[in-house]
Amino acid sequence: METQESGAGNPIGSIGDWTACAADPGYRAAVLDLLGALAYGELSAFERLAEDAKFAPGLADKAALARMASAEFQHYQLLHDRLVEVGADPTEVMSPFVEPLESFHRMTAPSDWLEGLVKAYVGDAIATDFYREVAVRLDDDTRELVLRVMADTGHAQFAVDRVRQAIEADGRVGGRLALWGRRLMGEALSQAQRVVAQRDALSNLLVGGAHVQGFDLVEVGKMFNRITEAHTKRMAVLGLAS
Amino acid sequence: METQESGAGNPIGSIGDWTACAADPGYRAAVLDLLGALAYGELSAFERLAEDAKFAPGLADKAALARMASAEFQHYQLLHDRLVEVGADPTEVMSPFVEPLESFHRMTAPSDWLEGLVKAYVGDAIATDFYREVAVRLDDDTRELVLRVMADTGHAQFAVDRVRQAIEADGRVGGRLALWGRRLMGEALSQAQRVVAQRDALSNLLVGGAHVQGFDLVEVGKMFNRITEAHTKRMAVLGLAS
Repeated sequence: METQESGAGNPIGSIGDWTACAADPGYRAAVLDLLGALAYGELSAFERLAEDAKFAPGLADKAALARMASAEFQHYQLLHDRLVEVGADPTEVMSPFVEPLESFHRMTAPSDWLEGLVKAYVGDAIATDFYREVAVRLDDDTRELVLRVMADTGHAQFAVDRVRQAIEADGRVGGRLALWGRRLMGEALSQAQRVVAQRDALSNLLVGGAHVQGFDLVEVGKMFNRITEAHTKRMAVLGLAS
Repeated sequence: METQESGAGNPIGSIGDWTACAADPGYRAAVLDLLGALAYGELSAFERLAEDAKFAPGLADKAALARMASAEFQHYQLLHDRLVEVGADPTEVMSPFVEPLESFHRMTAPSDWLEGLVKAYVGDAIATDFYREVAVRLDDDTRELVLRVMADTGHAQFAVDRVRQAIEADGRVGGRLALWGRRLMGEALSQAQRVVAQRDALSNLLVGGAHVQGFDLVEVGKMFNRITEAHTKRMAVLGLAS
């Protein structure tokens, strides 16, 4: 998280506002990619959480998941409106990310309520870590939007509480969910690497575009490592070995 | 809709505010039933719309359905908060309505995008008609909440546009959807009658409780007829024979 501390909240690291930065077509394309991925991610998170709500053991849990899904949709709406504001077509901008995200979801379809909770918790956290890392390389306006959208929607504490209760009630649950957590992380990294390989503008932003200093492919590897480390810590919080 | 015009917006028909009316335990029980049915209806509508979003032919349509689902959830939240405010347990109050609503949804699971749209449109409209009819028999505070929650969430025009386009493109679609609309209305009436038969307090409110004048079983039958007539008109707006 060093990058985050030295950049995200720090005006010294500012590369300027959107108007200044977007004059560079490469930068503009990269940010549209990023917002498109984030927007489809939110829409997709909405769908998955709404689907997982069906597994809920009771009405209060069902409503809790519906509440999170609804929060994700509000985030989608912010991103959609921003894309329209900067003259982009949201559908077009989201399209390249439909397949990778749907692949991820297909490969990690939860088979029950607890797997769904762990996925919501872990998936959301991985996405948040990634976007916070990237945020330091963004113009002020885009960074503010990204950080706002990645604000906690309440998944974390809810999932942690429910999963720990389940493990306390039946220790064998822990082994199964630990395996599940590893699979989630593996699939997330696999799809992220696929996206990086396919989206030139986005990759350029990650490895250092015109407005970015001191970032290279080794740094991308380090970023993935930091996200993996954070995942390991989160699994421990859930009471799971990673 | 005569009842609506002569009552809903008319202070002359007022039976007082919640505090005054809820002193009668029968009235209080009836309103908790009504709000419970409405709350679970909204949660259930959220789930169904979110599920139907999967059938959407494109990202813009998917987002439109997710937006409606999210609006239903906001309504659920208002009802939930109101139930807590009057000292009721939302889960307990919703419980009696889970089975009838799930039965309705099980009997009317849409097999494609268009059936889902017609169901969202017709189902929402039937519910709105019913609650507007009931609203005239409610205290001022509850009536205000019910009317606010039943406000259009944008289903109507969206569904009408999409269904008419589909019928224009292929006339045979109309016959299939007309049959579907009749089935939806039949199942809705069937479940509504089941609920009326099972919930004494709610039925008393419908047929005339302590605070209600001039309403009897014949009036309940007339109410169902008015709702059926309104359904017929709505099917015609969709371009379907009912």
